Amino acid sequence: MARYKLTIEYDGGPFVGWQRQDNGQSVQGAIESAAEGFCGRFVTVFGAGRTDAGVHAWGQVAHLDLPREEAEETVRDALNFHLKPNPVSILKAERVAEDFDARGDARERRYLYRIANRRAPLAIDRGRAWLVTAPLDEGAMAEAAGLLLGRHDFTSFRSVHCQADSPVKTLDALEVTRAGEEVHIAARARSFLHNQVRIFAGTLKTVGEGKWTPGDVRAALEVRDRSAAGPTAPPDGLYLVDVRYDG
Amino acid sequence: MARYKLTIEYDGGPFVGWQRQDNGQSVQGAIESAAEGFCGRFVTVFGAGRTDAGVHAWGQVAHLDLPREEAEETVRDALNFHLKPNPVSILKAERVAEDFDARGDARERRYLYRIANRRAPLAIDRGRAWLVTAPLDEGAMAEAAGLLLGRHDFTSFRSVHCQADSPVKTLDALEVTRAGEEVHIAARARSFLHNQVRIFAGTLKTVGEGKWTPGDVRAALEVRDRSAAGPTAPPDGLYLVDVRYDG
Repeated sequence: MARYKLTIEYDGGPFVGWQRQDNGQSVQGAIESAAEGFCGRFVTVFGAGRTDAGVHAWGQVAHLDLPREEAEETVRDALNFHLKPNPVSILKAERVAEDFDARGDARERRYLYRIANRRAPLAIDRGRAWLVTAPLDEGAMAEAAGLLLGRHDFTSFRSVHCQADSPVKTLDALEVTRAGEEVHIAARARSFLHNQVRIFAGTLKTVGEGKWTPGDVRAALEVRDRSAAGPTAPPDGLYLVDVRYDG
Repeated sequence: MARYKLTIEYDGGPFVGWQRQDNGQSVQGAIESAAEGFCGRFVTVFGAGRTDAGVHAWGQVAHLDLPREEAEETVRDALNFHLKPNPVSILKAERVAEDFDARGDARERRYLYRIANRRAPLAIDRGRAWLVTAPLDEGAMAEAAGLLLGRHDFTSFRSVHCQADSPVKTLDALEVTRAGEEVHIAARARSFLHNQVRIFAGTLKTVGEGKWTPGDVRAALEVRDRSAAGPTAPPDGLYLVDVRYDG
């Protein structure tokens, strides 16, 4: 047995999400099928983050055990060969210790939420950003984002279906910047609750439109009730940027 | 009659190109259908650049005449409404003089060619960049690009099917830059020959791989023979960035 760490890019559009499910093709399932095509037997692929349907990744991380050791480039290229034509790409395969755990060992996860803030529909970036036609005040959004930093009970900012044991998380960064007609929300934490970044994005958009003040966001946090925060932004704009480990 | 200038974004992937053709859906045809849906009669749409199948645009420009004057926002929004679900978006509609000619009045056209220079297949940018797996030397590419600037007979760099009267054009800029794993080729001229930017890209890639020297590119230019230059790069990486006019 030889364990490999995979760094993975995917377009989440055609998938039911990262996790294998009965109702359609998952990213995990696509990689498991590719691994089976490569090594001739089923191997489970363990991901660092269970992205939802439609959510993209530039740098998802997963691990899997192959029956025997192979060159890293061989693993990467063979998986990519068997992944065709899925929009999933193994950027890197690295031989790691047998106890490496993509999920449990992750020290930091970074997400980016892209809002296209313009009137016209998206043509090139359709499915890859959230179109918000009302002008957004990114300064107010940044101020509100700053009020969410640190260790909190984020019950207001997690899906009611979230299965995490505790709603308490430490948010290390939540930065709002504008690049032309795009507004970017960059989030960084050791781990996130289900839908947390999308609820951040939906709530900050409400602030950007001037419907909420930054103080309203802080108040929503303190209430610890999902219905107190803003809507869950669509998956289209969300990217798992990378997952970091010690060493 | 009221003439409008349209600024248009599109994903060229599903189209046979800008120009109306018998063998499939064109961008021009999609906009003409939308205009007919809006104003109830057929109107011709005249584009500034006839992009090929698979070529994208962030800022194509076209003009059309509507039977009566409408607010600019109404024209934009109505065309976008009728364009659904095509990946074509009218970014702007502007009322212009009756003699405005999107093609003939254009003073400058800018194109960007995106090369993804990495080993792994493209997932998120599939169809939106050219994947080149061999490491590219962007410095050598930039040097070669510089040798193509100015007024020349570009016979070596135009499709054998090019219908332009003269192969003589003035190339105002051809810049090669690297942004991480992407190599960008930015071209600027009053007008271009058929496939000119794609042949630039294919030729410069050959230099970047070390198979050709910058001097070979200059020699290819001087020979005035299409077969002397490099291959035509795929349409996926090409974007019509914008078209500029006087005033």
